[in-house]
Amino acid sequence: MAKGCLIVCDGNNGAGKSSVIRTITEHLESQHHQVVVTREPGGTRIGEKIREVVLDPETPELCDTTELLLFAAARAQHLKEKIIPAIDAGKVVICDRFTPATIAFQHYGRGIALDLVQSINSFALEGFVPDLNIILDVDPEVGMRRVASRGEGLDRMEMQKREFLARARDGFLRQAEESPDTFVVIDASQSFEAVSSQVLSVVDALLAKLG
Amino acid sequence: MAKGCLIVCDGNNGAGKSSVIRTITEHLESQHHQVVVTREPGGTRIGEKIREVVLDPETPELCDTTELLLFAAARAQHLKEKIIPAIDAGKVVICDRFTPATIAFQHYGRGIALDLVQSINSFALEGFVPDLNIILDVDPEVGMRRVASRGEGLDRMEMQKREFLARARDGFLRQAEESPDTFVVIDASQSFEAVSSQVLSVVDALLAKLG
Ligand SMILES: Nc1ncnc2c1ncn2[C@@H]1O[C@H](COP(=O)(O)OP(=O)(O)OP(=O)(O)O)[C@@H](O)[C@H]1O
Ligand SMILES: Nc1ncnc2c1ncn2[C@@H]1O[C@H](COP(=O)(O)OP(=O)(O)OP(=O)(O)O)[C@@H](O)[C@H]1O
Ligand SMILES: [Mg+2]
Ligand SMILES: [Mg+2]
Repeated sequence: MAKGCLIVCDGNNGAGKSSVIRTITEHLESQHHQVVVTREPGGTRIGEKIREVVLDPETPELCDTTELLLFAAARAQHLKEKIIPAIDAGKVVICDRFTPATIAFQHYGRGIALDLVQSINSFALEGFVPDLNIILDVDPEVGMRRVASRGEGLDRMEMQKREFLARARDGFLRQAEESPDTFVVIDASQSFEAVSSQVLSVVDALLAKLG
Repeated sequence: MAKGCLIVCDGNNGAGKSSVIRTITEHLESQHHQVVVTREPGGTRIGEKIREVVLDPETPELCDTTELLLFAAARAQHLKEKIIPAIDAGKVVICDRFTPATIAFQHYGRGIALDLVQSINSFALEGFVPDLNIILDVDPEVGMRRVASRGEGLDRMEMQKREFLARARDGFLRQAEESPDTFVVIDASQSFEAVSSQVLSVVDALLAKLG
């Protein structure tokens, strides 16, 4: 593969994104692919600073518009500084959250108009789209129980109400319906082994297609 | 005055914005106006954190798109959390930099397309415009000498090259030409006394007009 690609793992909190990303990474590295694992918001020095601002549980006053602009700012930096150079160098970039989360949380969750969310996103991305978006789908309550069982504190986005998370889940599924070529939904209520094997076959199919 | 207003002071670095704002504040307070002095980026807890990210001289990799989105994020928060409530409470808000700086630096300086800069701005502002923009106009070299004479370190925006600052100066003047109803240009190469007295008569005229 001369050029690399971007694989996004997204879905509600606790769906199993981080676990699945570790599995994909091991699988691809065993096939001698060069893999870059990264996350949003974050992934760069500047992005991680923005992450601290936008996920800080101590600033409940952060307004919806500011939130969307901060996610977009981190994404613009991430794309130019890290994702594009890695793809150009033939690497497989795996990103924990990306545009699907912005549409799900900021549009379906917060209620910001879809065309506004999309125009801010496309300003940050300048036409770039991921090769594959893997949506791990699980009842938000199951996800939140998994998060809670990790025993860490919650960030600002994880402190959202049940109805918000239900709207976001619906938003992930709607995006997948609308873009079947670049989205795959995996039922993440299954055992981790079942989830992993389905994810790996989707990833293998993508890499075979890209040659 | 039932409703307050927003007066913006803008212009190149070292033009005298902070000095003029102090003069306006004393003048208005002696007339028993309630004055709120604030600045961009910043003005709120979240905005000041964003300010640290965007003005940090240690992150030269920060890209133009990210910069614009960060300024807009700080502005959205500033408007909703601080400026609008103060105006609604009948206060005179005086802001050190605002939209004129974004158009001057990000469009005229960095070269981001004007319609993109304006659409990000209007997403952050939702139609809000300042009552008055006072542009302090001075040769950027004179301004930078004044900044240097204060003997503090330079932030990321202050480390820009001469041509960048010349384009930005031109950008401030062009905005004033295009919106004569809400912009006033003051020749800031004059003595501070001359600048102050011209600024105060413009401010008095605005407050008289607003009743
Ligand atoms: N299919 C699964 N069945 C049961 N538990 C799972 C499954 N997948 C992951 N887990 C467990 O759920 C917890 C959350 O998983 P993980 O951290 O991978 O989710 P995440 O989507 O990355 O969460 P976050 O949104 O907080 O980053 C972990 O303890 C993990 O071991
Ligand atoms: N008209 C003037 N003539 C000469 N010196 C001035 C004049 N106005 C301000 N100064 C001096 O120039 C320096 C910069 O002024 P000031 O801090 O008000 O500018 P500023 O526009 O707020 O700068 P910055 O962009 O760095 O915030 C100060 O030392 C101030 O006393
Ligand atoms: Mg995770
Ligand atoms: Mg100043």
